[in-house]
Amino acid sequence: MTELRNSVDWCGDHLEVIDQTALPERLEIAKLASVDDVVYAIRGMVVRGAPAIGVCGAFGVVIGLDEGRNLEALVADIGDARPTAVNLKAAVERVAAAARDGGREVALSEALLIADEDRESCQRIGDYGREELASVSRVLTHCNTGRLATAGIGTALGVVYAKAEAGEPIEVLATETRPLLQGARLTAWELAEAGIQVTLISDAAAGAALQSRRVEAVIVGCDRVARNGDVANKIGTYPLAVLASSCGIPFYVAGPLFSFDPEARDGASIEIEERSPEEVLQIGSSTIAPDVDVWNPAFDITPAELITAFITDTGVLRPPFSESIAGAFARRA
Amino acid sequence: MTELRNSVDWCGDHLEVIDQTALPERLEIAKLASVDDVVYAIRGMVVRGAPAIGVCGAFGVVIGLDEGRNLEALVADIGDARPTAVNLKAAVERVAAAARDGGREVALSEALLIADEDRESCQRIGDYGREELASVSRVLTHCNTGRLATAGIGTALGVVYAKAEAGEPIEVLATETRPLLQGARLTAWELAEAGIQVTLISDAAAGAALQSRRVEAVIVGCDRVARNGDVANKIGTYPLAVLASSCGIPFYVAGPLFSFDPEARDGASIEIEERSPEEVLQIGSSTIAPDVDVWNPAFDITPAELITAFITDTGVLRPPFSESIAGAFARRA
Repeated sequence: MTELRNSVDWCGDHLEVIDQTALPERLEIAKLASVDDVVYAIRGMVVRGAPAIGVCGAFGVVIGLDEGRNLEALVADIGDARPTAVNLKAAVERVAAAARDGGREVALSEALLIADEDRESCQRIGDYGREELASVSRVLTHCNTGRLATAGIGTALGVVYAKAEAGEPIEVLATETRPLLQGARLTAWELAEAGIQVTLISDAAAGAALQSRRVEAVIVGCDRVARNGDVANKIGTYPLAVLASSCGIPFYVAGPLFSFDPEARDGASIEIEERSPEEVLQIGSSTIAPDVDVWNPAFDITPAELITAFITDTGVLRPPFSESIAGAFARRA
Repeated sequence: MTELRNSVDWCGDHLEVIDQTALPERLEIAKLASVDDVVYAIRGMVVRGAPAIGVCGAFGVVIGLDEGRNLEALVADIGDARPTAVNLKAAVERVAAAARDGGREVALSEALLIADEDRESCQRIGDYGREELASVSRVLTHCNTGRLATAGIGTALGVVYAKAEAGEPIEVLATETRPLLQGARLTAWELAEAGIQVTLISDAAAGAALQSRRVEAVIVGCDRVARNGDVANKIGTYPLAVLASSCGIPFYVAGPLFSFDPEARDGASIEIEERSPEEVLQIGSSTIAPDVDVWNPAFDITPAELITAFITDTGVLRPPFSESIAGAFARRA
């Protein structure tokens, strides 16, 4: 597997991140030296992926302390940069609590710990997933959940990398993931870089792919999981779950327990970010539509009953999810 | 409703068509003066929409006779330009039979008749659909099935136009329809031109739209309907049918009986066109993905059991479709 630069790198007093808006045309590094830079990068999806924005936000708090900013304002500014993934707010709050306890150095240690934990979580998700998907060699995935989206090998794609690393056969059907094309731009790019067979399809072709049994499983990441197992993830996840269920194909959600929100009772209590119409009306320099009204939700909610199992860093959680999720939290506590 | 130029116009010895690849940026007219022009326009989707390519192909046969081409070769060249929509081959064969009977002038009369019939079919589909959807004011549609796709007011969009014309409230949620963006480029454009409220969504957002009851019905067109009611239509239709069924929202297919193929026993006997990877890898001048493998089917098959009813020019056909479709053919004969 090609060595890839970390998606988010701490450089002593600033962050360097892979600019995910420039890929696949250019591999550019963006320097984030201020809280404003960090918030701008998270909002503009220069850094994206629930775990990666958590890590980025964690170091953002340290940058804010170096700037002499008020801690409570910092927590709000960075923690609310994007609303749906729980990782961002949870990471920011962990680092803020550390700062309250022990100041800047303890806060920095906590941020470094969050990055380390994410790397290890990805590896464990990969290992558990490899075991769970031992007989599967063709998977469909959505959006990007790999090395760009995390501090490690990824969540759903972490399972793919773990299988490849172990020499097991694995092929990926990647949906392009409109409007921001994370599947086309990022997943296709990082899997091709890693030498893993990837085939790109439009989101609309996923139905025909599942109907014709081109894959044996669907595996996606998660931005926030409610206590009952409802999943907020990239818009287009819910249709894949309905289709997989209708076609009798297992549907897996991969993510660290850090992406599970004990405060969220169910999907209805998760805020869904709505983003700018321009993301749908334009692609790069191309105008693809007249200036009409647009509805552009960034995420959707997949009801728990459509999910076969969660592949987490604490093991595989199976239905009934209210119990298995509560059990995972209890073991962690 | 704004007067729009016909999508396909016969000009005595050549065709003038709206170049559907240039919209919405430019409204350009392409002149098709040879069989090669006609085949190129159909393959390249300068003209598209099952009824419109049928009409275009019909006049293409007349152009071929004027060029002194062999009739049987003509039928193959034009009839096979695209494989999935039955209208093209059926129209070409009708005009060829007329040419065999009475030469060029009889063939031209038949082509003009096919265009007239399509205009009238659209109007009847609109009227039947308006009655069927009397209590519906918000619909979701896919691809483009309107004035650009037919010689008349359209099939699925014909129902929308008929409701608007009658002063009934109607709003459309239009999927962008990747890869070629017929929803974003064409449906959004022609509905906005007609003053009908349209909201554009990415294909991946259709699930959330149906789940949250943003619409009361889904209505799509069809490229070919098998005898049992299985429908070949633009890639992404099948997922909408599965989602509509899962959400308890009615799913209508609108089209003339001319789009029903008595030779096709079921969906499995319909050829699905696969198109170029570049359609997925590039949008306009933007490269959206690295050069990886692509699977780009242009259509998918929606099983009959997911369809609430067909809205045709001979009335509304309801399950069991094998019987209602056979009955419609018998009445027509």
